[in-house]
Amino acid sequence: MARLSTESSMPHSADARRSTLERYQSVRRATLALVEGLSAEDAQVQSMPDASPTKWHLAHTAWFFETFLLAPHLTGYRPFDPAFTYLFNSYYEAVGPRHARPNRGLVTRPSLDQVIAYRAHVDEAMAALLAGSDLAELEPLITLGLNHEQQHQELILMDIKHAFFCNPLEPTYRACARAPGVVTAPNWTAFDGGLHEIGHDGAGFAFDNEGPRHKVWLEPFALADRLVTAGEYAEFIVDRGYQRPELWLSDGYAAVQNHSWDAPLYWRHEEGGWTVFTLSGRRPIDPTEPVCHLSFYEADAYARWAGARLPTEAEWEHAAATSGSVGAFVEDGRYHPAPATPRSGLRQMRGDVWEWTASAYLPYPGFRPVVGAVGEYNGKFMSGQMVLRGGACVTPADHVRISYRNFFPPEARWAFSGLRLARDA
Amino acid sequence: MARLSTESSMPHSADARRSTLERYQSVRRATLALVEGLSAEDAQVQSMPDASPTKWHLAHTAWFFETFLLAPHLTGYRPFDPAFTYLFNSYYEAVGPRHARPNRGLVTRPSLDQVIAYRAHVDEAMAALLAGSDLAELEPLITLGLNHEQQHQELILMDIKHAFFCNPLEPTYRACARAPGVVTAPNWTAFDGGLHEIGHDGAGFAFDNEGPRHKVWLEPFALADRLVTAGEYAEFIVDRGYQRPELWLSDGYAAVQNHSWDAPLYWRHEEGGWTVFTLSGRRPIDPTEPVCHLSFYEADAYARWAGARLPTEAEWEHAAATSGSVGAFVEDGRYHPAPATPRSGLRQMRGDVWEWTASAYLPYPGFRPVVGAVGEYNGKFMSGQMVLRGGACVTPADHVRISYRNFFPPEARWAFSGLRLARDA
Amino acid sequence: MARLSTESSMPHSADARRSTLERYQSVRRATLALVEGLSAEDAQVQSMPDASPTKWHLAHTAWFFETFLLAPHLTGYRPFDPAFTYLFNSYYEAVGPRHARPNRGLVTRPSLDQVIAYRAHVDEAMAALLAGSDLAELEPLITLGLNHEQQHQELILMDIKHAFFCNPLEPTYRACARAPGVVTAPNWTAFDGGLHEIGHDGAGFAFDNEGPRHKVWLEPFALADRLVTAGEYAEFIVDRGYQRPELWLSDGYAAVQNHSWDAPLYWRHEEGGWTVFTLSGRRPIDPTEPVCHLSFYEADAYARWAGARLPTEAEWEHAAATSGSVGAFVEDGRYHPAPATPRSGLRQMRGDVWEWTASAYLPYPGFRPVVGAVGEYNGKFMSGQMVLRGGACVTPADHVRISYRNFFPPEARWAFSGLRLARDA
Amino acid sequence: MARLSTESSMPHSADARRSTLERYQSVRRATLALVEGLSAEDAQVQSMPDASPTKWHLAHTAWFFETFLLAPHLTGYRPFDPAFTYLFNSYYEAVGPRHARPNRGLVTRPSLDQVIAYRAHVDEAMAALLAGSDLAELEPLITLGLNHEQQHQELILMDIKHAFFCNPLEPTYRACARAPGVVTAPNWTAFDGGLHEIGHDGAGFAFDNEGPRHKVWLEPFALADRLVTAGEYAEFIVDRGYQRPELWLSDGYAAVQNHSWDAPLYWRHEEGGWTVFTLSGRRPIDPTEPVCHLSFYEADAYARWAGARLPTEAEWEHAAATSGSVGAFVEDGRYHPAPATPRSGLRQMRGDVWEWTASAYLPYPGFRPVVGAVGEYNGKFMSGQMVLRGGACVTPADHVRISYRNFFPPEARWAFSGLRLARDA
Repeated sequence: MARLSTESSMPHSADARRSTLERYQSVRRATLALVEGLSAEDAQVQSMPDASPTKWHLAHTAWFFETFLLAPHLTGYRPFDPAFTYLFNSYYEAVGPRHARPNRGLVTRPSLDQVIAYRAHVDEAMAALLAGSDLAELEPLITLGLNHEQQHQELILMDIKHAFFCNPLEPTYRACARAPGVVTAPNWTAFDGGLHEIGHDGAGFAFDNEGPRHKVWLEPFALADRLVTAGEYAEFIVDRGYQRPELWLSDGYAAVQNHSWDAPLYWRHEEGGWTVFTLSGRRPIDPTEPVCHLSFYEADAYARWAGARLPTEAEWEHAAATSGSVGAFVEDGRYHPAPATPRSGLRQMRGDVWEWTASAYLPYPGFRPVVGAVGEYNGKFMSGQMVLRGGACVTPADHVRISYRNFFPPEARWAFSGLRLARDA
Repeated sequence: MARLSTESSMPHSADARRSTLERYQSVRRATLALVEGLSAEDAQVQSMPDASPTKWHLAHTAWFFETFLLAPHLTGYRPFDPAFTYLFNSYYEAVGPRHARPNRGLVTRPSLDQVIAYRAHVDEAMAALLAGSDLAELEPLITLGLNHEQQHQELILMDIKHAFFCNPLEPTYRACARAPGVVTAPNWTAFDGGLHEIGHDGAGFAFDNEGPRHKVWLEPFALADRLVTAGEYAEFIVDRGYQRPELWLSDGYAAVQNHSWDAPLYWRHEEGGWTVFTLSGRRPIDPTEPVCHLSFYEADAYARWAGARLPTEAEWEHAAATSGSVGAFVEDGRYHPAPATPRSGLRQMRGDVWEWTASAYLPYPGFRPVVGAVGEYNGKFMSGQMVLRGGACVTPADHVRISYRNFFPPEARWAFSGLRLARDA
Repeated sequence: MARLSTESSMPHSADARRSTLERYQSVRRATLALVEGLSAEDAQVQSMPDASPTKWHLAHTAWFFETFLLAPHLTGYRPFDPAFTYLFNSYYEAVGPRHARPNRGLVTRPSLDQVIAYRAHVDEAMAALLAGSDLAELEPLITLGLNHEQQHQELILMDIKHAFFCNPLEPTYRACARAPGVVTAPNWTAFDGGLHEIGHDGAGFAFDNEGPRHKVWLEPFALADRLVTAGEYAEFIVDRGYQRPELWLSDGYAAVQNHSWDAPLYWRHEEGGWTVFTLSGRRPIDPTEPVCHLSFYEADAYARWAGARLPTEAEWEHAAATSGSVGAFVEDGRYHPAPATPRSGLRQMRGDVWEWTASAYLPYPGFRPVVGAVGEYNGKFMSGQMVLRGGACVTPADHVRISYRNFFPPEARWAFSGLRLARDA
Repeated sequence: MARLSTESSMPHSADARRSTLERYQSVRRATLALVEGLSAEDAQVQSMPDASPTKWHLAHTAWFFETFLLAPHLTGYRPFDPAFTYLFNSYYEAVGPRHARPNRGLVTRPSLDQVIAYRAHVDEAMAALLAGSDLAELEPLITLGLNHEQQHQELILMDIKHAFFCNPLEPTYRACARAPGVVTAPNWTAFDGGLHEIGHDGAGFAFDNEGPRHKVWLEPFALADRLVTAGEYAEFIVDRGYQRPELWLSDGYAAVQNHSWDAPLYWRHEEGGWTVFTLSGRRPIDPTEPVCHLSFYEADAYARWAGARLPTEAEWEHAAATSGSVGAFVEDGRYHPAPATPRSGLRQMRGDVWEWTASAYLPYPGFRPVVGAVGEYNGKFMSGQMVLRGGACVTPADHVRISYRNFFPPEARWAFSGLRLARDA
């Protein structure tokens, strides 16, 4: 289970236990904070098979700790409700059968209150576990569980946004700060080719799919120093981008026609121009903000229209690793938008929108999933998806890494996904 | 609007106004009483496109009074929320566009509390309307609205039963009294052929589809004096009824194969035998109770297996009208099960399960829908459906009539539907 | 097997045998004549699951004689190919499993030549059977087989028309005579109400579904003395008939939207106006010809738009039986169009287009299918379909009867189906 | 159009013209030879949307020469039939609209004879073009057209096999020689890691997707020296490989369940064991032959079960390029199976079955499609597909190259696709 190890030599002092507990509680509290302002009804609905109810996310993340930490490791642990093993398993075949995904929205009982009680029950037991166990053994799994929970924090926001969008009243979730846009023309930042390394280097937590660190050969390339904006994307629409098959992958153009796509998800053309539905309600697009909620196909077509291409994930990671703009976030571990005009380097590399890459989501050379049920985490999804990099405004700030590999099917649009242009040098 | 008229010569005395208001309030209260014990989450979900959320039923029945009574007839009426016109229209094209039916379960806002407040707002305005209007003019529409509401009372129970069934935990709605079964063998009650009349005769309220009263020629026939029981239906299953195409209509056997039907909806085979999911939870079937939750195809195949057939709706209505067993209900207008052993005549003719007939749901000779949007009530559904007669245990007792024509597509099974055998004399 | 009996007292003289053989050969030759001008490729294709390849029709009609006449009744008969029992069974469950209907178009072997050889093999054996058997016993089944074959003659033309229409080149089948249209305004012919009889009266062949003859009560009604024309239907289109939901059954309007219907099948709007694809190729519509290739929904909506309704099948049959215009066909038993201007009575009652009625296809009182596999002929399709009456230009002239009940699902449009208006008197 | 260039300095001598014409005629004749033994009906059918009729392949390959060579380059060329431009365009958006792919099987006219005449017409015009044109300019396009035609030669065999399989009679196409199997255990051949080059090197023809030649970094790896056999795959089945989700990608296991896969396509379990449908009919599997007609998912699951993995396309190409076994084919340019027991190195690297790789079908670094409509050849399909390498017994022998990239969606099974195991060194 080497991939999950953080620092196995960490001393099991009271300080270490306290620190782990605080970290645990902090992440768990952040999840609950997302539910503030949501009613039990809001937390109930599932707007499409790809999405899940908020309540399900709350329960499933507790289920993870119950199943992989408490049940095997806390002597005398009594499950909150044995039926939850079945109800709140997402896709772990090794754990047993599970409730069909498209029916998650039909589970009105347990209620939201009961699910919150379930979380409290798990939290209490986790505190007991942390007080009395061999921390070195459990730390990697706890860290995995917390990172898993952070992924669901983002999914909660993606899914509730989509659910609210399906309501003709388009209710507002809450006022959200918006990252400032950019008004300057993009600059091309060049990178040398050569033999580079990408992938997680072993320091700190990473998912199994981020390693092993390995060599890649890159040809010289350049990246735009900022994201494509909503205003630029609107030009693509005006230029009949959605009507010109030569700009699209064949599957992409079929998707355009099947779904009658003519703009990003959440955009709507009204009298005064394009508006966009956000977690804070519908408002006019801001031409300087990054375009968001694109499918891979749209990102790819836009890049072709612009005479450019999408970066590969190796190019993106190498550029991010050698560019000064990303470091700030690592230092303080909290979210804040990238400076609108950094002194140098690439901008908007994290915390804005996920950036589609030209890379299929495949195992790195030498990849091996961890043994056991938690090994079903990443590897088995390595087909039919494309990699996104960088993190979005809805991603917990300390959850993003340079080596982080997000992935979605090329048709998916409900993630906070945009693009940055690349080209051969 | 002659079809809706009850007694236009009714005096508009204070007594008449009070009586109408009491009737209104009684029906409206009965709807709310069904929601007791349901959480906001329970009231939110829609388990399939055919079903609707409880909350939607609550709102739509208020919408009916707002749209057809208050908006056109109460001076100065202010709608509770103008958006509700769109949200809670079911299928009235003439009223304007409406929210897509399969997405009713996604409307988390308005909340259940707001919908209950909407009902109170409408009730208050209706009281004002009843105090100051020409009752003779409005009475027919009010009566229609109350009968409409009673239909939705039954739908609430049908739909919540299905929703709870879709939850793997199969929660209980509430303890429901169960009509006693029958243990005696069925007797055949014979009826003479000849020229008879069926259809509503104009006294009291009826839906437009129940008239005009008209002549029909019947050949001599006989009806079983009781419903087919669960125990009898279990014999059909044991006799491989679901595996023998010669017993089925072609479409019916296709439905058996497409849906992998091997028993009525809600039945499950467990170690100790068949169990059935009910509003009071799952329990073993009672062999003496009427079999319920059959599609038309299953009812038809069972009848063929039993060497009999389904009655036509004309046969059923003529038999009901000339049999002593039904009258009791007309006299006191309230629900109580048929006596387990009546002195004579047909038993279980109402208030047990709806009885599939052999008749397609078509207009009676001379049928004309009422003019205007309320005319979309029945006529436009006259294709692709079969008629059921008699009323079920979930039907409000004063809502059933001898001339009442219920209808569902032949594949539908979530209504409380069973059968009675018929044969040529 | 009483329903199939024609005249069991027929003397089995050599003349009778010769007459039966000639009748057999005449019908069989007529089938082959339809294939003239079709290539093996034309005869191969199946344009939709509802349709069948011409080759399949040729083989299936031979299969009928082989299965129901030769195998059980001709001593020493050797099947042409045992595999054909499986390949060319249409839907007779009692005969055994069968090839899936939507895959009929994939059976390239046997070839068309082999299927024609199969027919010759069956014809030769039938001649032997007719020479040496008890004609009284077999005559009903032979007659059934020949009527079955005539039904497939019409299906061949329906199906090849649809197949050619699916070819962008829209090839021509052959020059077909066209029935003259009518230019005079329709007159309403009134009929008295009362107790009438409909259904086959037992003289001559009829399908089981045409009986028993039985009493029906009719209210006074009137029928238009001619069919609705293409020109009249074009006015309905101009009047936005396809865009007005109040004219449609609910299922019908859903079909309009699902299939984007805006005109009858085979119509296309071109610069010069509406054109229609026919077996003789595409040509402008003739405003005086009967409108054809309507679904039931369209016929029903047109009638509502015209302030009228569709006739019931009982009304149609009673009118046809008491009107002078139909008799001519019975006397000479051969096809010719109705006179453009008969002296009196109803026109275009047969041999023009099938007329949708307002009646669902259900069993007549006392109906019982014949015993055995041939009993699967009609009864098991008695759900979800509507009755059409009268016969079309592609129906063999001696195949139509006043009591004949054709039936199709309400969405079907590839039959030669139009309408005649009716109204209450 | 650099990618298509072969040798632009080729002298335009009469010899060169003759040589090109002979090459052209040889490939075109090979296509027609595949049709021998097929009836017009066989050539008509399309068994699934992914497949095409033989007749369509014959016409489309002629259409290619007509559209890209004759129409633009042969003065005075008269198209055989202008409608063919629409009918036989496969997917070239730039050429204009085209007939919908799933309806190719409905085009009975033009007939097979007419399509063969179309080919002759094109061949004659091509001979004229070759006699009088600037060969240097046209040679690349002609070569592309011939390689295109060879691809369709393989598709004809894939598609007719599937069509015959859909016929319950499972007819035989023709007796086909079968490559000898292998009975020895597989050996692992090791390859050094390091910086290698793959991709077409510019000598001789290659498709645009095979270049540019570029550097890749490989870790040390090993390949099995032979393909996985049918006997080995049968052990996977016996070991419940299709019932164990932990062996499968998530999408793969969903495909297993959706399609009820339990063996390779064309396999059937009969009393005596597994049989397989081939172009020569159904026969028992030979345990020593390569397993064939696997989806990518099955190949991937098998490899996981075997404790190995699939090779990447870079590993495969590097191994093929440095292994002695492949060269023989390049020298004589004609098909013959790999020697059953080569002196050394890898066996069965071409001409047996296509080998699924672990690589998604994506553009190589620096890839750019050729300009114009022929540029739609490969690039626009670069999503959702996996690469296969090596060529199959149905691939023209001189069509396979070490750099050749075949590709299919991961669910596809009707290609002649199997696998070779790889592992990290």
